[in-house]
Amino acid sequence: MSDRTSRFISGDWGTSRLRLRLVDPASPGLPAGAEVESDDGIGPTFRAWQEAGSPDDREASYLGVLARALDRLRDASGADLDGLPLVLSGMASSTIGLRELPYAPAPFRLSGESLPVARIAPGVLPCETLLLSGVCTDSDVMRGEETILIGLAADGLADGLVVLPGTHSKHAVIRDGILEQFHTYMTGELFAILREHSVLRPSLAPSPSLGDAFERGVREAASGANLLRDLFSIRARSVLHGADPADNAARLSGLLIGTELLGLASGPDADLPIVVASPEPLGSFYRSALDVLGTGRRARALSPAEADRAVARGQGEVLRSHVGG
Amino acid sequence: MSDRTSRFISGDWGTSRLRLRLVDPASPGLPAGAEVESDDGIGPTFRAWQEAGSPDDREASYLGVLARALDRLRDASGADLDGLPLVLSGMASSTIGLRELPYAPAPFRLSGESLPVARIAPGVLPCETLLLSGVCTDSDVMRGEETILIGLAADGLADGLVVLPGTHSKHAVIRDGILEQFHTYMTGELFAILREHSVLRPSLAPSPSLGDAFERGVREAASGANLLRDLFSIRARSVLHGADPADNAARLSGLLIGTELLGLASGPDADLPIVVASPEPLGSFYRSALDVLGTGRRARALSPAEADRAVARGQGEVLRSHVGG
Repeated sequence: MSDRTSRFISGDWGTSRLRLRLVDPASPGLPAGAEVESDDGIGPTFRAWQEAGSPDDREASYLGVLARALDRLRDASGADLDGLPLVLSGMASSTIGLRELPYAPAPFRLSGESLPVARIAPGVLPCETLLLSGVCTDSDVMRGEETILIGLAADGLADGLVVLPGTHSKHAVIRDGILEQFHTYMTGELFAILREHSVLRPSLAPSPSLGDAFERGVREAASGANLLRDLFSIRARSVLHGADPADNAARLSGLLIGTELLGLASGPDADLPIVVASPEPLGSFYRSALDVLGTGRRARALSPAEADRAVARGQGEVLRSHVGG
Repeated sequence: MSDRTSRFISGDWGTSRLRLRLVDPASPGLPAGAEVESDDGIGPTFRAWQEAGSPDDREASYLGVLARALDRLRDASGADLDGLPLVLSGMASSTIGLRELPYAPAPFRLSGESLPVARIAPGVLPCETLLLSGVCTDSDVMRGEETILIGLAADGLADGLVVLPGTHSKHAVIRDGILEQFHTYMTGELFAILREHSVLRPSLAPSPSLGDAFERGVREAASGANLLRDLFSIRARSVLHGADPADNAARLSGLLIGTELLGLASGPDADLPIVVASPEPLGSFYRSALDVLGTGRRARALSPAEADRAVARGQGEVLRSHVGG
């Protein structure tokens, strides 16, 4: 678990998904097949532990979930994983995770050594586990995104307003390699619950697509209209004019992403370049919205490969600084 | 079904609730017990009809639901209901209702004779039924609120911006007794789905209450902050500071109601008095929010009795003008 070129297993344990991948720092573009992903997120794992009567050894119960995922990774990769450390970021260090770790406070230097971690000795798992914590401000929290940001900083990003789209999108203000401030937006979750649980449901296709309807939604957000009113207008136009469900979904997506990004044009960090760090297809929606909002020239997007490897790059930094290298 | 003092049965058939009450136009303050309410809304009634294999006679299937409610009203009131007409407003005239009726277009004169109606002869029900339609603009729809507005106009309201709080709040611009324009806000529904289906759920008490936390939420909305960001901050403060779920629910309610009402201070109809037409306790939340927003002096609230009887008052107007009196 030591030298600079050591391989490790990168674990990204979110609320709903668990992903393990075999990482070789020398060639972070991973070989196909060296990755497994499942629905064993921290949420379902916590519920399963509760439903089993909340046995005393919660940590062993969670490590059992990881052990099964490691078996699948071994099968998928055909590689010898023995002795490789497992590095875990995301919700694994939350109140409902494997073991709760306190947040590091922002401002936060985006280097490997500044993140609180816990080392869990081999036992249930054949390998040592390095559990990574998150970062907070006085009014916001992140667990997982800080590791992406450490990876981007290691790749040379010193200043930028980094947009990390998702269920809970984050906007991170980075100056001189320091995460100064960040804010979370409920964009992705609001889209999902409106589509699944609201009166808009019959008016919405399952997935949005780029194009005119999406851009109209972004412009609607930019015109300073009222979100609570614009939401219902999707329903009304569907009832009155039989608006196409695919257009409605795109318009809703544009309205929400546009609302999220609206402050970037004029906020206190308008001097910073905007960096969109997202896998596709979500990254394309954000780039299109930034173009419509007139902030496209300040923005650049990470390549899909850069965005994809950022977590593992950050984990590699933390691993090296905490365990040696 | 004729003279000016005739009694009738007032039916308010919403998406989720069905309410019948016995109305005497001579004394619209109703005797206790002369009202029944149930979960047989248009939504559940439509689904039950679909689950029964969508029999050809949809109207008979819906009238059967009304017949059972009339039986309960007869039991509850101990009155002889024979021959009294039933007047139905709300979602009963929608695409998923008893019979679909086209909307009347706005601008719309708030008198009884201008609303499209359908008369359904006795058969499944022992009485004649008068089904009332709704009103639309090019971009919005209402079914039910127009009848409340006809009732308020009959009570003397000629000019005002009428706020009708609810699952889908309506703001109606009335000048010279004409409904010129209206807009719908998804305030109540968004509160409900955030509380039931979002990451905020564990942070929220079931019901909001008035007070400091509610007013903070209204001020937050007024400060022009970003709704998608403010929503997540409720979660973050709960995680970081253990914020009280009762305070969080009140703050969310203030944030949403404040967002809904924000445009009233400066919109094109800022010359009109604001009239809040809502039963309690919701009316108190809206009055408190208007006070915080500095528009309280322009606003007045209907008394609970006025708000409560407005539907029946409007239905009485439509009944008289369409059936005679």
